[in-house]
Order: sequence, then structure tokens, then C-alpha cells
Amino acid sequence: MDEIKVFSGSAHPALAQAVADYLNIPLGKCDVFEFTNENIFVRILENVRQRDAFVIQPLSSPVNKNLVELLIMIDALKRASAARITAVVPYYAYGRTDKKDQPRVPITARLVADLLTVAGANRLLTVDLHAAQIQGFFNIPVDELTALYILGRYFEEKGLNDSLVVVATDIGISKRARDLAEKLNAPLAIVEKRRVGNADRAEALNIIGEVAGKVALTVDDEIDTAGSLMNVVEALGKRGAREVYSCCTHPIFSGEAIPRIAACPVKEVVVTDTVPVDITKKLAKITVLPIAPLLGEAIHRIHTGLSIGALFEQS
Amino acid sequence: MDEIKVFSGSAHPALAQAVADYLNIPLGKCDVFEFTNENIFVRILENVRQRDAFVIQPLSSPVNKNLVELLIMIDALKRASAARITAVVPYYAYGRTDKKDQPRVPITARLVADLLTVAGANRLLTVDLHAAQIQGFFNIPVDELTALYILGRYFEEKGLNDSLVVVATDIGISKRARDLAEKLNAPLAIVEKRRVGNADRAEALNIIGEVAGKVALTVDDEIDTAGSLMNVVEALGKRGAREVYSCCTHPIFSGEAIPRIAACPVKEVVVTDTVPVDITKKLAKITVLPIAPLLGEAIHRIHTGLSIGALFEQS
Amino acid sequence: MDEIKVFSGSAHPALAQAVADYLNIPLGKCDVFEFTNENIFVRILENVRQRDAFVIQPLSSPVNKNLVELLIMIDALKRASAARITAVVPYYAYGRTDKKDQPRVPITARLVADLLTVAGANRLLTVDLHAAQIQGFFNIPVDELTALYILGRYFEEKGLNDSLVVVATDIGISKRARDLAEKLNAPLAIVEKRRVGNADRAEALNIIGEVAGKVALTVDDEIDTAGSLMNVVEALGKRGAREVYSCCTHPIFSGEAIPRIAACPVKEVVVTDTVPVDITKKLAKITVLPIAPLLGEAIHRIHTGLSIGALFEQS
Amino acid sequence: MDEIKVFSGSAHPALAQAVADYLNIPLGKCDVFEFTNENIFVRILENVRQRDAFVIQPLSSPVNKNLVELLIMIDALKRASAARITAVVPYYAYGRTDKKDQPRVPITARLVADLLTVAGANRLLTVDLHAAQIQGFFNIPVDELTALYILGRYFEEKGLNDSLVVVATDIGISKRARDLAEKLNAPLAIVEKRRVGNADRAEALNIIGEVAGKVALTVDDEIDTAGSLMNVVEALGKRGAREVYSCCTHPIFSGEAIPRIAACPVKEVVVTDTVPVDITKKLAKITVLPIAPLLGEAIHRIHTGLSIGALFEQS
Amino acid sequence: MDEIKVFSGSAHPALAQAVADYLNIPLGKCDVFEFTNENIFVRILENVRQRDAFVIQPLSSPVNKNLVELLIMIDALKRASAARITAVVPYYAYGRTDKKDQPRVPITARLVADLLTVAGANRLLTVDLHAAQIQGFFNIPVDELTALYILGRYFEEKGLNDSLVVVATDIGISKRARDLAEKLNAPLAIVEKRRVGNADRAEALNIIGEVAGKVALTVDDEIDTAGSLMNVVEALGKRGAREVYSCCTHPIFSGEAIPRIAACPVKEVVVTDTVPVDITKKLAKITVLPIAPLLGEAIHRIHTGLSIGALFEQS
Amino acid sequence: MDEIKVFSGSAHPALAQAVADYLNIPLGKCDVFEFTNENIFVRILENVRQRDAFVIQPLSSPVNKNLVELLIMIDALKRASAARITAVVPYYAYGRTDKKDQPRVPITARLVADLLTVAGANRLLTVDLHAAQIQGFFNIPVDELTALYILGRYFEEKGLNDSLVVVATDIGISKRARDLAEKLNAPLAIVEKRRVGNADRAEALNIIGEVAGKVALTVDDEIDTAGSLMNVVEALGKRGAREVYSCCTHPIFSGEAIPRIAACPVKEVVVTDTVPVDITKKLAKITVLPIAPLLGEAIHRIHTGLSIGALFEQS
Repeated sequence: MDEIKVFSGSAHPALAQAVADYLNIPLGKCDVFEFTNENIFVRILENVRQRDAFVIQPLSSPVNKNLVELLIMIDALKRASAARITAVVPYYAYGRTDKKDQPRVPITARLVADLLTVAGANRLLTVDLHAAQIQGFFNIPVDELTALYILGRYFEEKGLNDSLVVVATDIGISKRARDLAEKLNAPLAIVEKRRVGNADRAEALNIIGEVAGKVALTVDDEIDTAGSLMNVVEALGKRGAREVYSCCTHPIFSGEAIPRIAACPVKEVVVTDTVPVDITKKLAKITVLPIAPLLGEAIHRIHTGLSIGALFEQS
Repeated sequence: MDEIKVFSGSAHPALAQAVADYLNIPLGKCDVFEFTNENIFVRILENVRQRDAFVIQPLSSPVNKNLVELLIMIDALKRASAARITAVVPYYAYGRTDKKDQPRVPITARLVADLLTVAGANRLLTVDLHAAQIQGFFNIPVDELTALYILGRYFEEKGLNDSLVVVATDIGISKRARDLAEKLNAPLAIVEKRRVGNADRAEALNIIGEVAGKVALTVDDEIDTAGSLMNVVEALGKRGAREVYSCCTHPIFSGEAIPRIAACPVKEVVVTDTVPVDITKKLAKITVLPIAPLLGEAIHRIHTGLSIGALFEQS
Repeated sequence: MDEIKVFSGSAHPALAQAVADYLNIPLGKCDVFEFTNENIFVRILENVRQRDAFVIQPLSSPVNKNLVELLIMIDALKRASAARITAVVPYYAYGRTDKKDQPRVPITARLVADLLTVAGANRLLTVDLHAAQIQGFFNIPVDELTALYILGRYFEEKGLNDSLVVVATDIGISKRARDLAEKLNAPLAIVEKRRVGNADRAEALNIIGEVAGKVALTVDDEIDTAGSLMNVVEALGKRGAREVYSCCTHPIFSGEAIPRIAACPVKEVVVTDTVPVDITKKLAKITVLPIAPLLGEAIHRIHTGLSIGALFEQS
Repeated sequence: MDEIKVFSGSAHPALAQAVADYLNIPLGKCDVFEFTNENIFVRILENVRQRDAFVIQPLSSPVNKNLVELLIMIDALKRASAARITAVVPYYAYGRTDKKDQPRVPITARLVADLLTVAGANRLLTVDLHAAQIQGFFNIPVDELTALYILGRYFEEKGLNDSLVVVATDIGISKRARDLAEKLNAPLAIVEKRRVGNADRAEALNIIGEVAGKVALTVDDEIDTAGSLMNVVEALGKRGAREVYSCCTHPIFSGEAIPRIAACPVKEVVVTDTVPVDITKKLAKITVLPIAPLLGEAIHRIHTGLSIGALFEQS
Repeated sequence: MDEIKVFSGSAHPALAQAVADYLNIPLGKCDVFEFTNENIFVRILENVRQRDAFVIQPLSSPVNKNLVELLIMIDALKRASAARITAVVPYYAYGRTDKKDQPRVPITARLVADLLTVAGANRLLTVDLHAAQIQGFFNIPVDELTALYILGRYFEEKGLNDSLVVVATDIGISKRARDLAEKLNAPLAIVEKRRVGNADRAEALNIIGEVAGKVALTVDDEIDTAGSLMNVVEALGKRGAREVYSCCTHPIFSGEAIPRIAACPVKEVVVTDTVPVDITKKLAKITVLPIAPLLGEAIHRIHTGLSIGALFEQS
Repeated sequence: MDEIKVFSGSAHPALAQAVADYLNIPLGKCDVFEFTNENIFVRILENVRQRDAFVIQPLSSPVNKNLVELLIMIDALKRASAARITAVVPYYAYGRTDKKDQPRVPITARLVADLLTVAGANRLLTVDLHAAQIQGFFNIPVDELTALYILGRYFEEKGLNDSLVVVATDIGISKRARDLAEKLNAPLAIVEKRRVGNADRAEALNIIGEVAGKVALTVDDEIDTAGSLMNVVEALGKRGAREVYSCCTHPIFSGEAIPRIAACPVKEVVVTDTVPVDITKKLAKITVLPIAPLLGEAIHRIHTGLSIGALFEQS
């Protein structure tokens, strides 16, 4: 286990390279490709016997292909006698399917945990799970990092703290929003969605807490289609917020996300690069903060047996 | 599997009897006791081969003894060739230890899931878990019932709806509070606790949302020492709430809970009997609603293969 | 377990419907769709408690999405308390990755077996695995059906037997080709590919056995890009075969398969519909034989406890 | 795994400290406490990544709480990435429930083994199990130490060997009694209990073997309520034993044990401190021999890969 | 599960046939044989889907072949979709290797339990395990029957009770000897073996308890080479026993057992037929009592869900 | 894990010694024997704590005893705290039972994989499995070596290449025969067996491919009774082959193998010593090539973390 090997799946090679650069090692050599019949094939091109192996693969688009690819890479490393395999999954998809809140639905976030474990992962390293309880879906050790400090520091340095209010865009994120609010020494407001009348999808947004005359900073774990963000920004405007900033860890930006962000009066959207952000999609008001130093330092600490907790203590 | 057998551990025999009465069957006969050396012993006194067995045991005080007793009962039923064993745990302790929110802590709620499973439970039937994600800590089927409808109906019938505001006593409960608010057609307010200065345990309570002039109904999954409840009631008073009602599913009432409830200006505390409420402790302003009909009906449906979801559809 | 429920994933609804028709029951109701962020969601819309559930899902294109979807459906059925879950996978992808024939590659066919099992499948029903040993990758019962009898009967009825030679298109398929040859009472020839010189991908085809003046019937478990088929047909022509028919169980037809088949002098390509064959791609010389009666009968026998082996005895 | 970390649960901190002293290391820092609601909480206060961790926790009173606490500590260490976790359980409770000797009873000693394993223990270190077969309840390596040599040496040094007879207080302990007898070069007698008439609990004691005129040394794995010991001492007196000494490994001393020992004509009761002996309960005729050197040496050997068997070879 | 199927391995077909006769059903049809290369092959010749299958196979000579054959039969039944598989192992070999009583030895009795379980056995039915704790080596339900009542009844009917003493031939069997003694209302004596001097294998036999002038009935779970039995009979003679009867459940009779029994002054050796007794070896003084009625009744009760415990209650 | 320990079961001590010699270490000391009752007993005679242990045991005759012995040795090493246990099984029996090719048969090759894993093996090292897919029956890492290079080199050095044809003695071995043919730069022929008429066991041999006037080299993974070899050699003669050589990895030589080889006109039979070849059986025309250097080098590489793949790269 003296030697560390970091491999990249095809989901986010730029991030993997940045992590390897942080660690000052070359990326592990491997072939990862699809045959014409869509069967993924993997071949590890260097000896990994008794090595400490890490596979970097966010579950970004194409989500299911990236998941299966990750499982296959883990299987290949296991059968190639790696001493320890850490799945480094900066973005853990299916996080919202973490409970049965209606009859006969799956708990896919648990299923994914079991898939990773049965494939042979010995550990998980991840960033900002949709719900912290997903850690408990695993019986292998999980290190969940948070980008909140990185995002928070960015806004601290911007000097907005004075009239700031942190806004949870959904009741589900209110705990993390509170943590960010505490860090930025700002009050908290929470957006509550409620069905209106009998119409199936009509929702009213209530904003619980004071936002009038303030600079609002919305926070979420991910921005997906940005539909919800758009509505929140609009509602904050109506309630008198002076200006609106947004931040999240995972910029999924699926569907109409980019045009919506472009069109809506949010001033700046600050994200990290746990998932790849298509450069052709990038708007001037989207700021991407690098996650590689945090991941790289965590991998270094896992490999050498240093505390990960200590990473966040003085933050 | 044609015959159903319902057994009671020593945690809450009155509830088990009420469930058996609902099902119109006698309770299964068994000896469950501690030797002088505190070793729990269990002897099932009737044949359970190929029977559909249920063990009713909330993880109420004494928590750890009741947990171990439940595990031992399951082991005895498994080795006695029961066809299926359902752990009926109306109150699931350790629910608050459901994630690693600081370094090197356990996820005990997951551990308990693994203990039940390894002992031989084939299913779990429970009521209002602290976090719904705890369902995903299990790979055996889990039926989580909710007492929210029972509690909500009680307040509906009381006719408070008009000037009501539902208050989540903590950010963590805000999702369920929203569900209750929606059901009661009332707005939502949320209590946020925040550390004050450097002092370790000094907390300020912020109430996010409007409560002045309103009838507040606080909601939580459990009331433990009632310390937090007392503070919330006081804060609501200061913020102008007209009167305060409280409800929760699980009346743990540990430590100073009863004198605190007696002393504090809450008008009524409405709970269910998922855990036994010591009759000597009961105050006039504590109302206990029976959970047995809900549990009994769920057991009936599990046994006969009817839908549990249908139980809540028209509610 | 008295009631049977057959569900379809999104891979091949027409096949699922045909199976349900064979069984004279309606298909089970369920929602299966992708959110904008590609997360698959599943909701079983009818009670499956204690029911005998079957999910029909070949691992056809899109392969990885269909695999993950199948796993999620199994998880949903498991958590919804189905008594038994049979994964009906008429085409099992990744069959060619069934061994480590070079260093540090995965055994994906085993991984898929583990994924299905950990998700909660209790049985597998499949058709013509790439290698029969894949059965042993499972510890749950596997019923592997074969389409060889269906294909063979078609050619018997065509009356080609007289001057026929059955041709294994690859050494790996030679055992099944022999079975078909025996059934059709025809001799066997085998195509052997061998690398030529140092060039990486140049292959020479040797045909071992007599084909001159004969009607050749090539057999394979699947036709993928048809590149290999094209070469075999050409080589058979050069070696004097009078005409060439082809058959296989799984018409994958990826990449350039359809134009290649159209262009090459094969007289007829006979396949089954274990995977969907895009109607727009269908050529006049492609004949598709229905697999639903075989699958339907097998499901009926699994459900009622009749022998599957008996299905093939008099064939 | 270069560094060793020894943690103590709340069962027996004095023993843990003595072991740490033997090893010449400080005890690992951790918080272990109960909330008011009896939920045990654990927080490991120093980095244990890749460390070789030992948790010292006899299953002494309060038995069930100590068991659950141990499981939770193991879970915390597992999730904190300890390289190896050894449960050091000097006294293994529930040892007498090691078989089904009547219908529908549990095998709790096996259950406890499964609980420790599922929580994440990689090894067990224990002392004098009630039955050696309990080792086989585990599939993780078990090191069972014995205090027989320590107890035997004490009596050897006392010089009683001459007219000594070793007395098994029960048929179940006769094998270990024989080992001690052999070591002390003394004959063996065995006490047999037999039901009298139809009365449920009336038992007659038969002493099989010669004790008249001899110094009897009774041996058992544990002394619980001392009721049985009292009867044996009395019976030995009646049968002419000159004087009676008693020894056991685990001084449970529950219920009326102390007054009974005080009242009964046993000359000396020699025990070890595998479980804490309440100082207020200690009588002059109770001698407690320290077990820490044996445990400490075993931990040292486990950590450094030296043989444990060698510890007992020259004894 | 409505239909019961009883199969026999090659260990003891006569016993299997007697059990089937008791149950009034034909034995299940199967081929079980060894190829020339000693590879065992099994083919179940009738449909077992959803049937309740029992395999009768004592682990008698050839022990290891019979063990592997049993595992293979279980595997075949599992893959053939039997609803439930009960391993009926009237004699469980390796019972004496049930603990580590010296460094670096196996616990083979546990290993065998794991082998049976991993092969797919759902239950075990066995007779008189060497140690009752072996039940706890399993997590599947175990029904351990005892032949003690059958043996005891035989001697009761013989009318020896008056001057009888039951003799445990070894300390390890003393508990069961006590049970038999209690049943026969006779006193107990115990044989203790002790090493003599430094010689490796010289043992002295001590008889603890009174035997002079009495009719001794030795009891053991099995008679193997009868070497130990011969010595005990001799020692009993020297100590004045009037005559000696012997009984055991499992007549292994390996090596020199038959000539030794023939030569030694034991009056009668009473055994059951849990293992086959070679007719050519049978002596007039060996009485074989049939075990099939007990096994058959137990199988009937397992199949129909009746209590097994009730079988022994009035005995 | 710094120290390597190599143990031998009783199957093939000469091979184990040769491997130890290659590694320049003494064989690990252990007792492995059968009691009179055929119960195998194992005692490891040196400390293996934290050592890297290898057990060398081909599953040669007596097959089932050797299998059980291997399992018991693994259990002993596991319980003795070996850091890693590699089962070195140069010949893996039951390889031909690797699929269900008829109803209700076992997949014993998978069962053996599960037995080894449950006993505690952490890795498998083997040579020329009957089917490479058997690797996928394991989830622990498998290193499958091949003797094809050793056999091929022998014939290369013999200089037969010129007029050589490599003959697969069965369709099942045709893939490996092709590999050898490619290596020797020779064409391939394949023997096909086909049933004749209705007679149960009458088979006709077809030789597919050209052999007239050539030197034939038959290849198989093992030679068992040599009955099939005899027929192939005869058929090759009839078809005009000039002379016939044979090779295989595993010389099982059961039943009439030796007289058949002696009598048949094969010129030379070249094998390795993965299984012991009884010296009294050896014929002049049987050549045994040593496998120990290959096994020894592989063990060295496994222990030190060097690539095994590299062993075969330049071959």
C-alpha cells in the first residue's frame, strides 16, 4: 500500500488530472471505452498489485453510463489485486431518491451504495451529498467533504456580509443553508413550496424570513434545470431583495438551465467543478471554483493516514 | 404463513395487547425476563413453525435493554422456524445519530438496522422515523407509518385552523412540519438555533416566519427532556404568539420533561402512545392518542398482502 | 405468491406485452422515466405485496441505462414487499466479458450477476447466454432458455437439410453450432480467425471443414456490427459454398450492421426478437421469429412450479 | 497499522488503564456517554486512520448497555477508518445461552458474535468463555486466554497441593476443572445437580468423587449470585471436606452474592478482575488477581504478530 | 411447498428408504455417482420446483466424499428451484473439532456448518451432536433430535434400573450421561482420563463415583475405534462393576472396533442406525435400534409446521 | 505481511517442496492427517500471525478428501490470524461441471469457489482451468497461469513445427488449441464427437480440418482415462496423420489411462506435474515437465506485488 495510483473514468478527466497534479503524480494509465454495442470495456495498463487505488468519477451526465463504468473499473482493480480501492465520486447522483416518500418507489441512493460495495469499493470519498444520511447507506468508510467553506470564503472575500441574508431554496436544504449563514454571520430565510388548489403542478413559493432590502444569497446542493432557482430569484425580487447571488456545489445545468440563468436577474452563480461544466455553456455570471485542491488533499490524507476532519477544523 | 402470531417484548405490553385486540387474536405466549446477572432470557411458549410472526417492541426506556431484548426475541423466533419475522418498532431510538456530522462518530441508526437484520428480522414496521432516510439503512422492506394524520385530525377537530401557524421546533423537522401545515392549511414558521459568541452551549433561537397574534402549533417527532420545547414556547410568546399547542409522535419525556411541561405556558401537548407514558407522570394538559389501531391495521395488511399505502391515500 | 405480476422496463415493451398476452394477463402498471438530469425514476402503480413479480428487460441499447433501470425496478419491487422477483433478461449484455484473458480486465458478466443479486432479484430467466458458464456467476436459480430449437425448426421447415453445412462463425460458438448441426443432421465447419504478420488487426479467416458446393448456415449467439458476418460470408463464397444463410438469437445490429447485411450476399438472416428490432431498419432478408411464446411459457412454468426442462425434452 | 490505539468503554476503565500502562502507552481519547434519553453517544477524539485499534469492554453490569456501547464504539472506529478493530471482551456475557436445550429459545452467545461482527470487529480477544465452542460462533479470529494458570499458580504458591481435590461445581465446568486438577496434580470431584421429585426447583447435589478429609478447591468460570457456590460448599462440608477454597475467573457477584460469600464457610474466594469488583463490596476473604498483564501481553503480541499460544506453552 | 420430496445421497440409502416408508412416499429419483476421476456427479430426475426437499446423508464413511456429495446435492436442488432444502444429517462428523483447544487448529465443525449454508441448505435436521453448541455454528434453523430416549427406553424395558449406574465414558459426555441417568433414575459416574508422567500417550483412567457391585451402563455419543470403550470396560471391571452395558447413538466402528468389542467383556452394545452398520461386521452382542421413525416423524412435522419439541415432551 | 509462509496439504508434497526450493525458503511446518474415523485434522506448527500464507494443494486423487483438507487448512490459517491466505490449486477439479447443460444438475465448479471463499481464502492461484470463465465464479482475485507456453516451447525445441497440425481433441478445448497452434505457427484441426443412431453411447468422431500426411499434436487441458485420447489417435491414423504427439496440462491418468497410453500408437505424451504422477505408472513415452518454477515465480510476484501478467508478455 505504499504506492498511490489515481485513475480517471471518462466522466471528468480534467478534474482527475488536476487532482493528480495536486498530488504531483501522473494519472494511472488505463483504457476505458465503449464497444459499438455500448458495452463498456476497461483495461488497467499498469500493475496495481498491493497499490492504494483511487478512481475519480462523478456521476455526471451520462449518469447511468458513468455509474456502470465506475463499477466496471472497480471490478477490474479488485481482480487486479489492488490493496484498497477508493471510489472518488465528487457528485453522487440519485441523492434525491433517498427515501420512500410514496408507495412502491425505490431508494436508489441506497442501491447505488450497494452497487459500489458489491463491485469492490473499500471506501467512498464524496462531496456534499444531497442528504448527509446517505453516508449511512454505506458500511464502508465514507469521507464526505463539503464545498461550503470554499463557497463561503468566496462571498466573504466579496464583502457582501453586511446586508446579507442566506436563503435556503428548499426546506430540504435548510440545514446546510443555516451552516453557511452561521459561517457568514448572516440571518437565514427559507423558501417553502406549496401546492395551490387542485392543479397538479401549480406551486406557490412562500419565503419564510426577512429579505426585503437585503442582498440574498441562495444556496442549494445542486442546480439542475434552474427552474426552481428562477422562481426563487423572482420571488425574492418581489419580496424586496436588493440583489440575488446564488451558489451551489454541483452545477448539473441540465435542460434549459443555461438560458434560464442567462435570462434571470441573478447577479452571479457560484459553483464548483465537481461535475464538468461545458465551456460552450458558460456564462460570464457563472463563476466556477476548483474542487481539485480539496479532493487532492483528502486523497493525500486518506493515503497517508492523516485526519480528514482536521481539514475543516480551522475553517 | 397462514397463521399470524403477535408477541410482545417487555417494552410496551399495553400497546401490544391493544394491537392484538384490534386483530382479534390473543397475544403469543412467551417468557421474557432477566436473570439476576442481567442476561435476558426468552422462551417462545407456542409453536411458531411456518407462522407469520410479529414482535412489538418500541425502543423506549430502558433503551439498550429493550434493543437487546428485541434482538434476542428475533433470534429465538428465527431458530424456532418462524416463516417471517416482522420487527414492529413503533419508536426507533438512535434516530438522531443518522450521519457523521463531526469526525469519528458512529451512525448508530444504521448500526441498529444491521443488528435487526443480522438477528433475523425479515421486515420492519415503524412509526415516524427521525429522518425518512433511515428507511434506506435497511435492505429488508420497511413500512414507515406516520402519526401526522392522527395528530392533524385532532387539531382539525379542535377547530384551531383559522389563526393557526405550524412551527417546526428545529430546522431538521421542517419538512414534516410543512406536511402538517399543508394538511391543516396553515402557514409555517421555523425555529432556528444558533450558537452565541464563543460560549459552548449558549444558543439563540430565531423564529423564521410570522407568529405574532397567532395560535402556534409546534411539531416535532419526539419530545425528550422538553428543554428545547420550553425555550421555543417562551420564544413564541415573546414574538407575540397568542397561545401555543404542541404535538409530537413519541413522548419520550426523559429527565425533567414532565415538570418542564407543567411549568411552561403551553396549552396542550398532544402525543401518541408509541412509547409507554407513565401514568403517574401524566399531566392534565397532556393528551395521548392511541396508535394501536394504525399499527394493528398495518399488521393486518402486511399479513394478508393488502396495500399499506392505501391506508394513507384518502387521508 | 398466488398472483403473478409482469412488469416491463423501457427496453422492450412490445415483447413484454406479447408475453403478457401469452399469459392472458394485463401488464403490471408502473411509471418508469428519466428526470431531466437523467436520474431514472420508478413507481410501481399497483400493490405487489406477496405477489410473484417478473420484470422483462433485455439489456439492449441503451445498454447501461437499461441495466440501471432494471436494478432500480428490482429495488422498488423488493421494498414494496414482492414475494419473489424474477429478472427476465432475454438478452444478457456484457456476456463477452466473461473471463480475464489479458491482465487487469474486469469480468463484467459476473459483476452484472452480482448487481442483479444485490438489488434483490431472486431468479434470472434468460435466453442463450454468450457462454453457458455465466449461469455459474449466479447463486440464485437461473433458467437459461435457448432459441436454437426455434431457429432450427425454421430451417428444417425450409427443407435445406440435404446439402447443408452448419458453420460456427467463431471457435467460441462451436459447441452450440455442433448442437444445431446435430439437430439438423448436418456436418459442421468452424471459422478460425488468426492474426496475420505483425499488423495489429489484420486477421485471416480459416475455414476448418468442408463447405464447397454446400448450403452454409452460419450460427452465432448475436450479430453485432455484422462485420465479422460479412467476412465469413465472403470467405464461404471463396471456398465454394453454394449459398449462405445466417441465424442468431440476438439481433443487436449496432453500427453499420444493416447496410452491411444489405450489401453482403447472405440469402437470409434469421433472428429472434429478444431485443427490439427497429422497424425502420428491417430488410426483406431479415426474418424475425417471436420469442414471446417461449418466454411466456417459461414464466408460466416458473410461477406454477412446472418443469422448464420438460419444455425442451421432446424438441 | 504501525501505531496501536487502546480505547476503553465505560464498563471497566480501571482495567483498560492497567492494560495501557502495561503497554506503556496512553489510553486513546474518546467521549462515551448517554444522553438523557439513554441513547449512547461516542466520539473518538484522536485520529485512528490506519491505526490498529483495541476496545476494552467486558460485558459486565449493566450488561446490555455495555454491549450496545461496545457495538457503537466499533461502528465509530470502523467509520473512522481504523485499519483493524479488536474487541477486547474480558468477560463475554450470555455465554450460558449457547445452545437450544429446550424448544424455542435463542442462542444468544451466537447472536452476540454476529452483532460484534456486523458492527465491524475484525478480531475478538477474550478470557475463559463459558464454553470453548463459543469460539466457533465467530468467523473472525478469536484469541481466548485463560486465567486458569494465574489461579492455579496462586494455589500452587499457597502450598495446598498435598491433600487437595479440585471440585467442578457443575458438570458443565468439569473439563476445565480437570485441566486445573491436572495442573495442580490433584484428583477431581464433580458436583451433579439433580431435580428432586416433581417440585420445580428443588435440586439435590450429588458429589461424585472423594472429598472426605481433603482440602477442596471449587472451580467455575464465574460466580454469579453465589447461591450455587453456597450449596456446594455446604455439601462439601457434609461430605467431610476439611476446608473449602473457591476460584473463578469472572466475579459477577450479582444479587445476594456478597452476603452469601460472607456467610458461607468458604475460606477464600480467588478471582480475577475481568469485570470490575465494587470496592465497597469486597470482603477480606475475596482475593482479586490482576488480569491486565495477561491482556496487555496478548494485545502486544496481536499487534506485533507474535504467537499468543507461546504465552501458555511453558505454563 | 405443498409437496415433500425426500432424496438420498449414497451414504445410507437403507435409512433414507426407511424414512420414506415412514412418510409413505417414494424416495425422490436422482442419479448420484462418481466419474472415474472421482468427480461426483448428481442429477435430480424429477421436478423439484417449489417443492419442500430433504436430503438424507449422514457424514459416515467415506466421510469427506459423503460431505462433498451432500454439498453438491444441495447445490443441484438450489439451482433446480426447490422451495426449501433441509439437510438431514443423522450423524454430523467433525463434531469433536469444535473449538481451538491448542494453537492454530481449525474449528471444522463450524466450517462444515458454513459449507452447508453456502451450498444452499435452508435447515439442518440432525441427531445427537457431539456438543449441543454446534447448533450455534449455524444461523439457519437446526433441529437436533436425540436418541437418548430410544436408548433409555430400551434399557428401561430390560429392567436393569435397580442396581444401575450410568457411566460417562469421558468428561465431555457427562452432561448427556446425567440426562440419561436422570431418566433411568440411576446415579452417575464419570470416567476421567489423565496423562501419566511425561510419556506422550499414556493415560490413566480415573472413575469418579461409585460403581462397585453395580450394573454399569456406559454412554457416549459415538463409538469410534472402541479403544476407549475397551479401557473403560476394563477399568469398571477392576473397580468392581458387576456387568457392563454400553450404548451410543452413532456406531462409527472404525479400525479395530468390531474385534475389540468382540473381545471385551461388555455384555451388550446398543446403538442406532444413524450410520450404516456393515452387516458382515455385526456381532450378536450389538443391538441396533432403528432411528428412521424419529427422523421420519421430525420430517413430517417440519413439512407440516408441527412442533418438534412436542415430540420429546411426554418422553 | 513481510514474511511469506508456504504450506503443503497432503495432495502433492513434492510439488510444494519444489516451489519452496524455488523460493529458497523452507516449507511451513504443519501436521495434516486423518484420524481412524477419517476426520482430517490440521495443526499449523509455526506462528502465522500477520504472515502471507500460501497453501499448495491440487485437487488430485483422492479428490474430495483433498478438497476438504484444503478447506480445513484454510480455516486453521484464518483462525490463526494469517494476514492473507492464497489457495494454490494447480489442478482445479470439477471444472467440467461448470454449467447446467441438462435440467437439475449442479454447477460444482462454482460451488467449489464458494467453499474456498467461505473457508477463508483471500486469493486463488491456479493453472489452466477447464474453462476460463471459472475465474468469474470467484469474487476474490484469481491468478490463472497457463502451461501452454511450457508445452509449446517443448515442441518448438523438438523442431516438429514444419508439418505440424494442432488438434483439439474436443470442441470445448478448441480455443486453447488455437492459441497453441498460433504459437507454433501451425494449422488447427478439431475433433467433433457425435452420437450415432439411437444407441446411447455410440459416438462417431469427425475430424474437421486437414491432417493427412501431417504430424498431429493433440492438446487438451487434462487426460483422464485416456479413452477419448485413444479414439482420437486412432481416428487421426485412419485419416492419414503421419505420427501423433499429445500434450495436456493435467495428467489425471485415472482408470485404464496408463495401459491405454502404452497400447496406443501415440508417440509421446507431454504433461506437467500439476498433479502427482505415480512413478510406478510412468511410461517411457510420457514426459513430465516441471510446473514448480512457474508457480514459484507467481507466488513470489504475488507476495512482492509484481505483475503476473508480465510473466507471459514476452512468451
